[in-house]
Amino acid sequence: MTLLAATAALALAATGTLTATGARAATSEDQAAATLLKGAKFAKAKESLKGDYDRIIQDIITLTEIEAPPFKEDARGAAYMAMLKAEGLSDVERDEVGNVMGLRKGTGGGPLIVVTAHLDTVFPGGTNVKVRREGDKLYAPGIGDDTSSLPVLLAFIRAMNRAGYTTKADILFMGNVGEEGPGDLRGSRYLFQKGKYKDAIKYFISFEPGEAGRVTNAGTGSRRYKVTFKGPGGHSFGAFGLVNPAYAMANAMVDFATIQAPAQPKTTYNVGILEGGTSVNSIPFATAMTIDMRSNGKAELAAEEKQFLAMLQPAVDKENAARSTANGKITYDAQLIGDRPVGNTPESAHIVEVATAVVRQSGLEPRLGAGSTDSNIPMSLGIEAVTLGSGFETFRAHSLDEGLTMNPPQDLANMATGLATVLTLAEAR
Amino acid sequence: MTLLAATAALALAATGTLTATGARAATSEDQAAATLLKGAKFAKAKESLKGDYDRIIQDIITLTEIEAPPFKEDARGAAYMAMLKAEGLSDVERDEVGNVMGLRKGTGGGPLIVVTAHLDTVFPGGTNVKVRREGDKLYAPGIGDDTSSLPVLLAFIRAMNRAGYTTKADILFMGNVGEEGPGDLRGSRYLFQKGKYKDAIKYFISFEPGEAGRVTNAGTGSRRYKVTFKGPGGHSFGAFGLVNPAYAMANAMVDFATIQAPAQPKTTYNVGILEGGTSVNSIPFATAMTIDMRSNGKAELAAEEKQFLAMLQPAVDKENAARSTANGKITYDAQLIGDRPVGNTPESAHIVEVATAVVRQSGLEPRLGAGSTDSNIPMSLGIEAVTLGSGFETFRAHSLDEGLTMNPPQDLANMATGLATVLTLAEAR
Repeated sequence: MTLLAATAALALAATGTLTATGARAATSEDQAAATLLKGAKFAKAKESLKGDYDRIIQDIITLTEIEAPPFKEDARGAAYMAMLKAEGLSDVERDEVGNVMGLRKGTGGGPLIVVTAHLDTVFPGGTNVKVRREGDKLYAPGIGDDTSSLPVLLAFIRAMNRAGYTTKADILFMGNVGEEGPGDLRGSRYLFQKGKYKDAIKYFISFEPGEAGRVTNAGTGSRRYKVTFKGPGGHSFGAFGLVNPAYAMANAMVDFATIQAPAQPKTTYNVGILEGGTSVNSIPFATAMTIDMRSNGKAELAAEEKQFLAMLQPAVDKENAARSTANGKITYDAQLIGDRPVGNTPESAHIVEVATAVVRQSGLEPRLGAGSTDSNIPMSLGIEAVTLGSGFETFRAHSLDEGLTMNPPQDLANMATGLATVLTLAEAR
Repeated sequence: MTLLAATAALALAATGTLTATGARAATSEDQAAATLLKGAKFAKAKESLKGDYDRIIQDIITLTEIEAPPFKEDARGAAYMAMLKAEGLSDVERDEVGNVMGLRKGTGGGPLIVVTAHLDTVFPGGTNVKVRREGDKLYAPGIGDDTSSLPVLLAFIRAMNRAGYTTKADILFMGNVGEEGPGDLRGSRYLFQKGKYKDAIKYFISFEPGEAGRVTNAGTGSRRYKVTFKGPGGHSFGAFGLVNPAYAMANAMVDFATIQAPAQPKTTYNVGILEGGTSVNSIPFATAMTIDMRSNGKAELAAEEKQFLAMLQPAVDKENAARSTANGKITYDAQLIGDRPVGNTPESAHIVEVATAVVRQSGLEPRLGAGSTDSNIPMSLGIEAVTLGSGFETFRAHSLDEGLTMNPPQDLANMATGLATVLTLAEAR
C-alpha cells in the first residue's frame, strides 16, 4: 500500500470522520460471522494457522529476499506462483502484466472473490533486501509492505484445506503487480479492465500489513503531475534579464499554495519534489515540480485538478511579461504521472457488513477508513471491495529500516479474523 | 575562467560600455611596445613559438589527459611543476594549496610579475579526458579552459631564452589551483593572502583561452548562496495542512525576481539550481536553491546581497502564517558558497596601458572588459592585474564537448602578442 492507508486512518480519526459503528442491531452478517467463528472447523483452521506460524515467517523471508521493484516483479511473481500451485489451486497462471493467481473452486453457484496481496515494493533494483533478525523483529526493505501478506494468503488456503471447508464461492488467490506509487495500480487495473475474470469478480479483498480492526472501504483518489517549465537558459551574468523558468514555477507554487481544499470529503495537495538547473551561474533551461492532489471525493478531486491546471499558464505568462523573451519564452508541460480513481464501497455493502461483523464478533471494534490501495480500482467501478490487515504489525514502511514485529498470539488473532472474513463472504461450510 | 569572461565581453559590447580607445596620443607604453615588437630578438622569439607549435599541442594533450577536478589538481600540478623546472626556472616549488611556480630571475631592481594559468577544470573526477582529434579540432573536457594556456607559458619561457632576453623584472611563472566555481579563486587568494611572494607582487597576468585583443581589466564580483528551507515534513495526505518549505522557497523566489538591479555598473542575480523533496506524496523536509549575485560595482553587489538576505525571513514567515506549524516551523539557512571580490584595474594603470599598447602596435583594437578570473583577487587589493587571451580559439567551455581549433598563423600571432605584453611589462632587453 502507499503510506496513505495507515496515515489516512490516523488523519480520519483526528478529523472525526472515522465511522465507529457503536450500538447497533445484529445483522444477518453478524449471525453468519458468529456461526462461523464458533464452528469446530474454524477451531481447526486456527490450529492450522498456529502450526504454520514459523513457516509463514520463513516464506516472508524467502519472498522478501527476492527483490520486486516497481515493474520488475517477475522473479518474485514466479516464486509466488509456484507457492500457489503447491497449495493445490487450479488454473494457476500469470497474466499479461505479471499478476499471478490460482483458483480454489467453490461448490458452484456462488460469486467469484478475489483475495490478493501485492508483489511489488517501492525499492529500486539493487537495494539490499537481506533479512536481518533482532530479537522479535525482522528488518528488510519491503518485508512489511506487502511481502508479509503474501504467505498469509497461503496459510489461509492450508487452513481451509485442513479444516475441510468448502465454499459456495470461487476464490481467486492472487499476488498482484504494480500497487506502489509508480506502478499506479497497474495489476489491479489490468484485472478489472482486461483480465479473463474481469466480468466475473463480485468481491475484492486486498490484504495489506496491519491489524484486523481496520476495514478500508473508501479509496482516496489521486492525480499526480510532473510539471516542467522550460526556457532559453543562458549565463547568469551575460544573459541576465532573460526569463527564468524557476520564477515561473515559483509563481505557480505560490498560487497553488492558496488553494482552499475542502475538509470534507478530505482533499489535499502537495508540492513533493523540486528539481532544475545545472549550475549556480546558469539560468536554468528547465525546472520541474511534482504535484500530488488527493481526495476522498471524485468531484472535489476533479475541481482541485482543474483549478491547479488553470494556474500554470498565468504563472508562465507572468514571468514572460516580467523579463525578456528575446531568446525564447517560458513554456510548461504538465505530465500526468499518477492516476488513482476515487472509490467507495458503501457501509451498507455486503462485503463491508461481513468484514465489520467478523471484527465485532471477534471482540474488536471495526474502524472504517480511506486508503489508496488496489481496492481503488474495483471501488471506482462500483464493485464491492475492501482492504484488510493481514496480521503483522509492521513499521517504517517504504524506508530502508522497514521491519515487522513477531508477536504470535496477536498476529495469529489478526490472521484468524482475516480468514473468517474470507470464509464468511465465501459462504463456507 | 568562468564562462563569464567571454560572455561579459559580449554583454558589455551590447550595452555600449565597451571602451574603444579610438584615436589617441601615443603613450610611453606605445613607444616601448613598438620598440620591442620591431626588435631582432622579438623576431627570434616568434620563430621559437612557431617552431614550438607542435610541442605546445602535445603538451596540451598530455596535461588535458591528467584530470584536474576542483580541489584535486595535485597530479596535474606535479606534472606542470616538472615542466616548469625543465625550462630552467629557479625556486621551483609547490605551495601549501597546490599552486606550482618557478622564477625567471631578472637583472635586478625590477618588479615581481606573476604570469599564470590555472590548473583546475570544472569536471569531476572520473570524467573521460582522453583527447580526440577531428581535422583541425581537438576535443576533451577542460582542453580549452584553461589547460590550453599552460603550455603557452612554457613556450614563452623558451622563446625568451632562445631570443636571449633579459628582463629587469623577476617573472614568477605559475600554474595555480582553484580558479573554477567551487575553487572560489583559492589559489590566487592564497598567493596574495599567505604566499611567500604576497608582498612583492607588483603585476599579475592570468592567461585564459582566447585571442589577444581582449584585455580584462575589471573583475566582476559575485556572492553565491545555497539557501536551504527546512520543515517538519509529513505525508502529503495524512499531514496535509502542515507548512511546506517549497512554498516558503517559492515566496522567496517570487520576491527575489522583483529586484531591480542597476544596469551600471552591471549587476545581476539568478536562481540557478533547485532541489528538494523525496517523493511526490511527501511534504518535503527540505528544499534548497542556489543563488548567484554579481556586479561590477562593490557597493551595488553589497546592496543587492543585503536586499536578498532581507527577503528570506519574510518569505518563511509568510508560509508559517499560512499553514499549521503544529509539527514544527519552516526555518532557513543561507550558506555562502561563493565569494569573488569586485575589482578593477584602472585604464590608466601601467599594466593596462602596456597590454593595450601591445595590442594596438600589433595592429589590433584592444577591447577592455570585465570577467571573473584569478585577477579578481589582486584587483580587489589594488594590485595591477589583467587577464589576457593565451592564443587558441576554444569552444564549448565547461561542457563535455569542449574543444579547441588549431589555426597556427592566428594562434601564433595571439601568443606573440601575449609574450610581447609580458616582455614590455618586464622591461626586456
